Amino acid sequence: MPSLEDAHALDAADPLAGFRDEFAIDDDDEDRIYADGNSLGRLPLATVERLRRVVEEEWGRSLIGSWESWFDLPQRVGDLVGVEVLGARPGETVIADSTTVNLYKLAAAALGGASGDRHVIVTDAGNFPTDRFVLQGLPGAHVHTVRADPSADDVAQAIDDAPGRVALVALSHVSYFSGARLDLPGITHVAHDRGALVVWDLSHAAGAVPIDLAANDVDLAVGCTYKYLNGGPGSPAFLYVRTDLQEQLQQPIHGWFGAAEPFAMQQQRYEPAPGIGRFVSGSPSVLGLVAVEEGAAIVAKAGIGALAAKGESLTAFLLDCIDAELGGFGGDDGSDDFDIITPRNPTRRGAHVSLRHPEAWRICRALIERLGVVPDFREPDVVRLGLAPLYSRYADAWHAVQRLRTAVADRVYEDLPMERRRVT
Amino acid sequence: MPSLEDAHALDAADPLAGFRDEFAIDDDDEDRIYADGNSLGRLPLATVERLRRVVEEEWGRSLIGSWESWFDLPQRVGDLVGVEVLGARPGETVIADSTTVNLYKLAAAALGGASGDRHVIVTDAGNFPTDRFVLQGLPGAHVHTVRADPSADDVAQAIDDAPGRVALVALSHVSYFSGARLDLPGITHVAHDRGALVVWDLSHAAGAVPIDLAANDVDLAVGCTYKYLNGGPGSPAFLYVRTDLQEQLQQPIHGWFGAAEPFAMQQQRYEPAPGIGRFVSGSPSVLGLVAVEEGAAIVAKAGIGALAAKGESLTAFLLDCIDAELGGFGGDDGSDDFDIITPRNPTRRGAHVSLRHPEAWRICRALIERLGVVPDFREPDVVRLGLAPLYSRYADAWHAVQRLRTAVADRVYEDLPMERRRVT
Repeated sequence: MPSLEDAHALDAADPLAGFRDEFAIDDDDEDRIYADGNSLGRLPLATVERLRRVVEEEWGRSLIGSWESWFDLPQRVGDLVGVEVLGARPGETVIADSTTVNLYKLAAAALGGASGDRHVIVTDAGNFPTDRFVLQGLPGAHVHTVRADPSADDVAQAIDDAPGRVALVALSHVSYFSGARLDLPGITHVAHDRGALVVWDLSHAAGAVPIDLAANDVDLAVGCTYKYLNGGPGSPAFLYVRTDLQEQLQQPIHGWFGAAEPFAMQQQRYEPAPGIGRFVSGSPSVLGLVAVEEGAAIVAKAGIGALAAKGESLTAFLLDCIDAELGGFGGDDGSDDFDIITPRNPTRRGAHVSLRHPEAWRICRALIERLGVVPDFREPDVVRLGLAPLYSRYADAWHAVQRLRTAVADRVYEDLPMERRRVT
Repeated sequence: MPSLEDAHALDAADPLAGFRDEFAIDDDDEDRIYADGNSLGRLPLATVERLRRVVEEEWGRSLIGSWESWFDLPQRVGDLVGVEVLGARPGETVIADSTTVNLYKLAAAALGGASGDRHVIVTDAGNFPTDRFVLQGLPGAHVHTVRADPSADDVAQAIDDAPGRVALVALSHVSYFSGARLDLPGITHVAHDRGALVVWDLSHAAGAVPIDLAANDVDLAVGCTYKYLNGGPGSPAFLYVRTDLQEQLQQPIHGWFGAAEPFAMQQQRYEPAPGIGRFVSGSPSVLGLVAVEEGAAIVAKAGIGALAAKGESLTAFLLDCIDAELGGFGGDDGSDDFDIITPRNPTRRGAHVSLRHPEAWRICRALIERLGVVPDFREPDVVRLGLAPLYSRYADAWHAVQRLRTAVADRVYEDLPMERRRVT
């Protein structure tokens, strides 16, 4: 059974331990364990200063003149995220809009560019709601849904079931629900073999696991920047298109910021910008973009290899603690047992752990309101623990599990209301 | 000829004069005349403090828990803008995405909801590029373009030329180029009479002229918040749908933030939220939204009636100064003449004035770099002066015209490069 001393020893040896100091964590916040970095990443200190400068100096004083330096933010920050975090080549990534809008653009482009009878999109039942909703809402698309967290064989089978008709495979690399990490190389390969494109939603993967879009010849990807990239609430999303597809696929939302000459305003016809720039539509959110730049810069400085290694090790330690403290804990009738639904194989999981429990909702509320741990709850019965490797400690994992044990052992949740509120 | 004393007298009598103090204007900025509030509005002091609080306290400290108060921002700030600025009813406006994306959603919805052979969208040649591009890019749309700044008769004629085939009339209320204000009531009426919907882009109108969407039975509207609403660079846009159309029209980008129960994540089918909420797609930009809330709150406090009245009066004074100082000024060959393309009728113009001049580009550069006036340039030959009524003074108008005269009389621009750079 891992001890607190074990945790402290791991923290002392952690080469990334110093990165915690780059985030806004007050002394009076020291004892609170933030296990929701996979939902909203923490605030980097550099972001506070950068936003102050952009707001007060660039907007407040230089006013419209600042657009000269803001104009290329979607591409510049896109390359930072793409090259440093996603393994993309330069010029393949932009930051723009939301994950939802970006997925719509890319799925519509893939469908529009598909030849012949290819109108089917394959996704999985466990995909994040917005992904499934976007795909279902696409005019002319037929969505074929496979079981949650599919293998490459499952995807191959689904494509083979509709021969010559699948245009696109749209999946999340790491499942928001189970924490399972899908076989990106294998699934991309079977899709390509069968003439389909892939679009990966990397929201729960970017900044948490190693990703190499170029080496795996990935066609398209999207994802959000407010989780492990610490871009702040509702920060703009990333969008990746492999170089050779950029001129071939046409995204449907033609706007002036995606035009070759945005200020040639007398031009009557839309001429898309060369390269990835054509996937931008309207005016980019400057405050959002500079916050993403700061957040992603810290990830780049830590290095995605080191971060992914720590993510794997921290998650393994967390699982060890859960096994030791929560395993076989469920009382005579087993009603208090936790079911760990996150895969044990470290290459098949992301950096969060999902535990099923019939009282998951009230356990989460008790942890947040009474025990100083911030996990999140996911319908219908999951407690998610996401210890972002950039600022989380092994000791956090140890304490989180101790408090989770207390929540259940002492039924700390028992007087809390059953009724669920809307929380993210 | 208006004198500086006249200007000062008007400023002294201006009931909105005090609002200038609500914006970040340094003493050393006192002499610079910002005539580009129609492109990027100034920074409200309240926004500095609000952003600090949202970043450092809500994001930095309360973290994920803050979503409980952020969740309804699109609707809450939407109602502030809709009800106070646009004359909409409560529940008809949200803040989300960009003007480009919002126009795409609404035009696609209008086209998708149109019956029979209605595939034609009527717009005008002078519409803002992003508007024309979005409409041209819509699958299945036929765009019919009428002359710039059309009258209600022009629009009626265009619809009658394609009987039973026009689904939507898509125009900007105030032209970014000429400053002309189109006849919103008349055009809306002729469109409705002929079975077409209208979508108004209010980007250059919101916060500058009186708008009454409810009284005019306007169907749909979009617009940006970073001009006269002072929401900051690239702030999210507004989107308005008249109540009775909300359940009838289906926007194509289905996302979790537009779903009835965003956190019922096991739901396999998209169930749109009741009312205007279904027009939201992905996660909203929190920093953008709170900045819009602060900017719009000042507009609401000043009152759109008072603002529009001052906008009209300030623009009239500006035109008087231009007539007196720049009229018939063009040298022997007339080559230095300015051509005022903004309508003289105050009910037919917005709050900016556009001057054509063959040297417009270099005149703009000279004003910005050497004469302490910030206008903007629009291709091919327009100097735009946008004195936002909330923080501009009559004296600013007077000085701006004096310096414009100097720029041309002394050919202050003559040694500047002809080559045009990308500027917003």
